[in-house]
Amino acid sequence: MTATDHETVVHAMQPEDSADLRALYQGFKDNHLNPLWTQTGDLMPMHPKSKAVPHRWKWSTLLPLAQESGRLVPVGRGGERRAIGLANPGLGGNTYICPTLWAAIQYLGPRETAPEHRHSQNAFRFVVEGEGVWTVVNGDPVRMSRGDLLLTPGWCFHGHHNDTDQPMAWLDGLDIPFSQQMDVGFFEFGSDRVTDYATPNFSRGERLWCHPGLRPLSQLQDTIASPIGAYRWEFTDRALTEQLLLEDEGQPATVGQGHAAVRYVNPTTGGDVMSTIRCEFHRLRAGTETPMRREVGSSVFQVFEGEGSVVLNGETLRLEKGDLFVIPSWIPWSLQAETQFDLFRFSDAPIMERLNFMRTKVDGQ
Amino acid sequence: MTATDHETVVHAMQPEDSADLRALYQGFKDNHLNPLWTQTGDLMPMHPKSKAVPHRWKWSTLLPLAQESGRLVPVGRGGERRAIGLANPGLGGNTYICPTLWAAIQYLGPRETAPEHRHSQNAFRFVVEGEGVWTVVNGDPVRMSRGDLLLTPGWCFHGHHNDTDQPMAWLDGLDIPFSQQMDVGFFEFGSDRVTDYATPNFSRGERLWCHPGLRPLSQLQDTIASPIGAYRWEFTDRALTEQLLLEDEGQPATVGQGHAAVRYVNPTTGGDVMSTIRCEFHRLRAGTETPMRREVGSSVFQVFEGEGSVVLNGETLRLEKGDLFVIPSWIPWSLQAETQFDLFRFSDAPIMERLNFMRTKVDGQ
Amino acid sequence: MTATDHETVVHAMQPEDSADLRALYQGFKDNHLNPLWTQTGDLMPMHPKSKAVPHRWKWSTLLPLAQESGRLVPVGRGGERRAIGLANPGLGGNTYICPTLWAAIQYLGPRETAPEHRHSQNAFRFVVEGEGVWTVVNGDPVRMSRGDLLLTPGWCFHGHHNDTDQPMAWLDGLDIPFSQQMDVGFFEFGSDRVTDYATPNFSRGERLWCHPGLRPLSQLQDTIASPIGAYRWEFTDRALTEQLLLEDEGQPATVGQGHAAVRYVNPTTGGDVMSTIRCEFHRLRAGTETPMRREVGSSVFQVFEGEGSVVLNGETLRLEKGDLFVIPSWIPWSLQAETQFDLFRFSDAPIMERLNFMRTKVDGQ
Amino acid sequence: MTATDHETVVHAMQPEDSADLRALYQGFKDNHLNPLWTQTGDLMPMHPKSKAVPHRWKWSTLLPLAQESGRLVPVGRGGERRAIGLANPGLGGNTYICPTLWAAIQYLGPRETAPEHRHSQNAFRFVVEGEGVWTVVNGDPVRMSRGDLLLTPGWCFHGHHNDTDQPMAWLDGLDIPFSQQMDVGFFEFGSDRVTDYATPNFSRGERLWCHPGLRPLSQLQDTIASPIGAYRWEFTDRALTEQLLLEDEGQPATVGQGHAAVRYVNPTTGGDVMSTIRCEFHRLRAGTETPMRREVGSSVFQVFEGEGSVVLNGETLRLEKGDLFVIPSWIPWSLQAETQFDLFRFSDAPIMERLNFMRTKVDGQ
Repeated sequence: MTATDHETVVHAMQPEDSADLRALYQGFKDNHLNPLWTQTGDLMPMHPKSKAVPHRWKWSTLLPLAQESGRLVPVGRGGERRAIGLANPGLGGNTYICPTLWAAIQYLGPRETAPEHRHSQNAFRFVVEGEGVWTVVNGDPVRMSRGDLLLTPGWCFHGHHNDTDQPMAWLDGLDIPFSQQMDVGFFEFGSDRVTDYATPNFSRGERLWCHPGLRPLSQLQDTIASPIGAYRWEFTDRALTEQLLLEDEGQPATVGQGHAAVRYVNPTTGGDVMSTIRCEFHRLRAGTETPMRREVGSSVFQVFEGEGSVVLNGETLRLEKGDLFVIPSWIPWSLQAETQFDLFRFSDAPIMERLNFMRTKVDGQ
Repeated sequence: MTATDHETVVHAMQPEDSADLRALYQGFKDNHLNPLWTQTGDLMPMHPKSKAVPHRWKWSTLLPLAQESGRLVPVGRGGERRAIGLANPGLGGNTYICPTLWAAIQYLGPRETAPEHRHSQNAFRFVVEGEGVWTVVNGDPVRMSRGDLLLTPGWCFHGHHNDTDQPMAWLDGLDIPFSQQMDVGFFEFGSDRVTDYATPNFSRGERLWCHPGLRPLSQLQDTIASPIGAYRWEFTDRALTEQLLLEDEGQPATVGQGHAAVRYVNPTTGGDVMSTIRCEFHRLRAGTETPMRREVGSSVFQVFEGEGSVVLNGETLRLEKGDLFVIPSWIPWSLQAETQFDLFRFSDAPIMERLNFMRTKVDGQ
Repeated sequence: MTATDHETVVHAMQPEDSADLRALYQGFKDNHLNPLWTQTGDLMPMHPKSKAVPHRWKWSTLLPLAQESGRLVPVGRGGERRAIGLANPGLGGNTYICPTLWAAIQYLGPRETAPEHRHSQNAFRFVVEGEGVWTVVNGDPVRMSRGDLLLTPGWCFHGHHNDTDQPMAWLDGLDIPFSQQMDVGFFEFGSDRVTDYATPNFSRGERLWCHPGLRPLSQLQDTIASPIGAYRWEFTDRALTEQLLLEDEGQPATVGQGHAAVRYVNPTTGGDVMSTIRCEFHRLRAGTETPMRREVGSSVFQVFEGEGSVVLNGETLRLEKGDLFVIPSWIPWSLQAETQFDLFRFSDAPIMERLNFMRTKVDGQ
Repeated sequence: MTATDHETVVHAMQPEDSADLRALYQGFKDNHLNPLWTQTGDLMPMHPKSKAVPHRWKWSTLLPLAQESGRLVPVGRGGERRAIGLANPGLGGNTYICPTLWAAIQYLGPRETAPEHRHSQNAFRFVVEGEGVWTVVNGDPVRMSRGDLLLTPGWCFHGHHNDTDQPMAWLDGLDIPFSQQMDVGFFEFGSDRVTDYATPNFSRGERLWCHPGLRPLSQLQDTIASPIGAYRWEFTDRALTEQLLLEDEGQPATVGQGHAAVRYVNPTTGGDVMSTIRCEFHRLRAGTETPMRREVGSSVFQVFEGEGSVVLNGETLRLEKGDLFVIPSWIPWSLQAETQFDLFRFSDAPIMERLNFMRTKVDGQ
């Protein structure tokens, strides 16, 4: 027997029922012990079989609920954030979009401030629409605008304030589920107001670091997380545009035919922006369909622009601007673009890679 | 407010009850959404507060139950192993000694064979007493004797067989809880019998690698896990003995006064033996008491020899040969040696370090 | 005796002259042997005492000689390049600006082509003035303009062509002396013409890589040398400008008061652009004087703009645009800016750091 | 023209002689400039063509000269060591066995002391015969016996003393030529006597570190050089013996058929013992002939036991115990064993690898 399933063989080791056996099992129970042989294949499945399920959330549903929250729920110290977490239907009501990651829509009304705090958990924000909020990270005010990725690495103080008369909503991503299950989190309150209400166009981190291939001589120590606070849409868009132009010229630039993609990286190492979260942006030409792919670890996508669909474990889900979906570990997926199709992605791949659990399987490779 | 607790402020953000609010909450529920502001401080505690609790298992209880299992439960394909898992009382009946690790007593009767399989999960065995079993790892038969640490890194085929007329019990450690919660595991059945019933004193891995400071020129590629299959007691004992002798000579060799300790390492890198599990051995002189210490991540100790106690979160637990105890994340602990006190330790520290969540706090430092 | 000089003690070990001693010395000579005790402190000095000497070359001298070479010397296969090497006066006529590095002024007349070849030696070009030449590196045409740093890492094919009716001169830097003395160099001729006479504004390498913090998903393998072919002046200038503005705002951005500086790096690693050569750009505010500094390894500076001087081993040398000077290992140096003072620097620091020989000593630290 | 030799084309770029040209060349000379086009292919050869030549030194010649030195030359402060350096016949009388490395026979008479000093240069000693000397490295007395490799990494204080009434000779290897040419060396005198005349069987470094796969918990910081002071013959011999036994059993253990080999490594990293010097030991079964091989960088071998020969650039040199030979960069070589043939090897491979210049070419691969 070399490739069968647990279920077909698991009973091979079941002992005959007897008074002695029942006494033994009671002894186990009394002493906080569980025999391996009575446990199902869940413990060590043939391949990852997540309790998390593939799921899509529609922006057209999310945004009105966020707006209504803005109307009904104050923001302030204690609850800290007016954030609405996406809860994977398979994960028992926990606010886990997958076993490692948290995704939420955060909503900040006109002139509101979300107070400062810090925590071990790594966080980012991605802006699918709107502008006018500044997030202040370790005292550095960072403008948030459509298409920008903003980082708040673990243990950086941060708060947000809305400098306008319009509300703003965005996507928050964190490693809260991982931190909660692995018991790694520390938390500290900071200022009830943000420490700097300035609204500069560019943060100090950007001004110091966002010059391609140039490292300040005052910053030669590598950092665990990226020192870039804001990855601007202007650069992301240009990078993707160039990849497709290079592809048109017959040059090897895209990750697949019609599929441009960038990873956001820490310029001090060339690696992922944070220890637990990978962030990427993908652009598909209209008509492109990516090969069916499985990966260890979980991913979340948000549509930034365009229309298309994802085939998730055999089911096709249509996607429009703002829609989010989650791909649990080892679930096969493929993207299909009707128009030019722009998607932001984040995942727990750094965890899988650093602990040597990553595997991928791509159709036709 | 810079250092208060969640509980005191969490209600600051609670909105007034209303029909609209109830409709909003129903909308959340219908759409697999959870508002952050109704969740307790559990989500992001001020410091790690594990559901796992400190606990000790007595060898004098474990061994008779294992022996009785040997009498009543057959070993074979399906259940795969006659292993009795230690279930942390705080973790809801799961066979998790802590959120990341599995610990079990495995028992193999005279002339029995545990069939071959492989899995992504990393595993080791530590032998607190007995001998006579060989574990066959990727075809290499490895003798198991008292004091030895035997490795079965992820995706290596392995089975065991007892070459004697005496039963044998030992400690199994794996990263099953981590793998299960993070959805990273693959599994494959192998031969129903072990592939090689030879009983050499030394495995091929040891013969190739266990020469201090010498690397075979045929093995220059670094490996994810240690290529050493067996860390022999003879070497561990000698290393600890020398550290204490050097301390007697006034040399800096021990990790603390009266406290010798070694980490088992991968000779290709000098780092941990496996990506997720750290293994160490500690020896305390009689009368030694270690400073109170807290660490992110969980540890399990097994007493190898001697008597003493552990102070775990303020409670003193006496310890004898074979006793096991678990220290959940950030729980303070201190060891006290009545006699010379030898303890094997394993932990999830490589996970914490590789993902940059490690913190330690030691009294008086 | 703990800090004396060799010279005072070297004779302590000199034996009495005798016929036997002379026979012994003849035996050494006959058998290609040298006794250590007859060798001077040169072999192992108290600190680095380079045969190379500090020296400055004036651009006002170099450029006319380069122009005259353009008139008299054809460029083509064999000699390969119309390059005039700066020969350190202390290094016995070798074309070594220091023991590790080569620096030369290359001159290409109107419409001329320097044919393609490749070699193990790492190379770069820095443009102090002019434009109109494209260097074609592994088939990718790279525009050369004032202030740009252009890379030709080891074993990349490269040739140059002048697309205009004006000549152009620039600085070439290579690790030829290191390669020659260490016997590491390979060489291969390529096309007699460059393989692509296109004159795009931006090379393919720039279009793929020059987006700050963004890594193409098609380029996840780290590279030994930077994949950026051209570091444009526009970015360098902006980075330095921002550092000084941040300094004005009281932020830690400069490497010293009034002293902005960037290192050119490989975006796949955050480290030096090539294995043997470090490239940096320094800007001093008018009036700034850097602390006296010594470093292991050699540096070459070229003034890009402005006026000032360098104090080199106690001697003050005035500097204008285009002037070059070399600082041999452990020679103390300090820069003084009369106007805003912009300098390009390259050095062998990666060699020193990778082999763990780097030391620095800064006055007042 | 894609693969021709420099010599055939170098004159293609020679200008016509003229008064102007002579004036130009004079201008170059006056200003410390050399034109590239008048330089030969030496500067950038098609492949490494070392000035160093292959050469063998006979132990039967070296040892009597060392003994005679012992009779005629005192050892002491200033000359520091009674060491006779092997001077490559191609390197102009410098005491360089190759462009990077120094090799010398050091000789210490009965009861003599070589005083303490330290230097940036990395050093080792290898003992081809004899015993009775202790080398004291940073205060740790290290026994020197036949077959042992002893390390003195850069900037460690070290002296030697002979505890017996017999003289002793051994091989010293250092990176003096590299350090001298690259200007990286510092030197400091220490005690005129060694700081500890104890004669323990095992040094403290060995007692702390020479336990396979075990790292002291007090020593978790990686070190630039190996913390093992002595690599004992007993371990080396056993490792090689096991490799050949494993080969007999059909296991992949040797580096080639009949060719066992180990690299001495730093246990904190698994890498080379020192930044600039690689040390290895090779054992060939009688009758074994290694494939012809070329490598970038230079190697030195010393025969430890047995008889055979080396084919060096086509010339066969017979070898006996103690004989030394050098293989300059890119010179083809092959070993032939008449008896079981044991050889110690050291090389500058870490320099070549860390700076990415390594290439190898093996016949039939």
